[in-house]
Amino acid sequence: MNRNEFTTEIYDFLWFLKQKEVGNKILDCGAGGRYPKLGLLAKYGYKDLYGIDISDDSLESAKQFAKENNIEINLQKANMKEIPFEDNSFDAVYSYNTIFHMTKKEIHQAVNEMIRILKPGGIGFINFLDIDDDLHKSAEELAPGEYVEIFDGEKVIHTLLTEEECEIMLKDVHILEKQKKFIHRLELDSKYKFGFLDYFFQKKK
Amino acid sequence: MNRNEFTTEIYDFLWFLKQKEVGNKILDCGAGGRYPKLGLLAKYGYKDLYGIDISDDSLESAKQFAKENNIEINLQKANMKEIPFEDNSFDAVYSYNTIFHMTKKEIHQAVNEMIRILKPGGIGFINFLDIDDDLHKSAEELAPGEYVEIFDGEKVIHTLLTEEECEIMLKDVHILEKQKKFIHRLELDSKYKFGFLDYFFQKKK
Repeated sequence: MNRNEFTTEIYDFLWFLKQKEVGNKILDCGAGGRYPKLGLLAKYGYKDLYGIDISDDSLESAKQFAKENNIEINLQKANMKEIPFEDNSFDAVYSYNTIFHMTKKEIHQAVNEMIRILKPGGIGFINFLDIDDDLHKSAEELAPGEYVEIFDGEKVIHTLLTEEECEIMLKDVHILEKQKKFIHRLELDSKYKFGFLDYFFQKKK
Repeated sequence: MNRNEFTTEIYDFLWFLKQKEVGNKILDCGAGGRYPKLGLLAKYGYKDLYGIDISDDSLESAKQFAKENNIEINLQKANMKEIPFEDNSFDAVYSYNTIFHMTKKEIHQAVNEMIRILKPGGIGFINFLDIDDDLHKSAEELAPGEYVEIFDGEKVIHTLLTEEECEIMLKDVHILEKQKKFIHRLELDSKYKFGFLDYFFQKKK
């Protein structure tokens, strides 16, 4: 079993979708993987689901999941720095455990893109890594807040942000709720804690 | 619609129940209300569900919910400072958004009771209010960390705790995960943030 099935942040996002009575057209930026979050949205009745991802393998896994569970998801390879959809075309957009794998400059581009494709009044959710996350700080710091590690021979970036840095990027949307969370998996690793900044927002009408 | 249906902490708890493959007998301390959390456990297949609450009205609402949704929950009036069940008799126990409405001394009693009725290897979850919660600090401080407000003519206590205070109470169990969360509902209230300390634990075998 994969913990993704119980991804609590997506339930918070679902709550805002229901509360704001947004439509069905929803985009996941970083949609790939064995347990795509879009599956949870489908379970709650959302029907016009889109996902982009830069990894062929992750897209393939998500397609397999959709097939096995008999749900329709429109998946395509794309980078969230250049989202291949029109302005004001989605009712909701989210990016979960993805955006912090880019540099600060790229994150800013991606946030702008997510807001661009959202309809006025549409709902967004992004989780960033918090500056006080201490899991990733042992890695090499390439630029302030940008850490690089090698996983399976590949370079992986983790960018840690302050609330102020996040809110500069979100200055033109209406922030509905922010959550700052420190998760300490004592069972798995006694030394480090994850730190997240989760923002739920609405594009101005 | 009530946000309780999307109570994210209960999904975290469900994850631990599944991961540890615990049995069906589960107790909710503070189980009453219009959207009882036990309903979510029933939805995930748990069958031997018990709940206690000190409020007749809340118990009545929960009974109504169980009836409407055709689920069986064993509800009874009781105080979690003296849980009316035998030692080592439950596979899991939790208390959500309840325990902080007592004094520190009472909280300690309640935590001891929750651990007492849990089987060895059983799973527990409690959320406390964090000492850095700033929503409740404008109230009158009766004792260090213990604040009293008047809601609808009734005295309501909010007790804020440090991690150290929580972990003294949990010194004899195995803490699986802790989460420290600050939730800022900007849409509803721009001034204050909630602060929580969520502990998921396992009674030693």
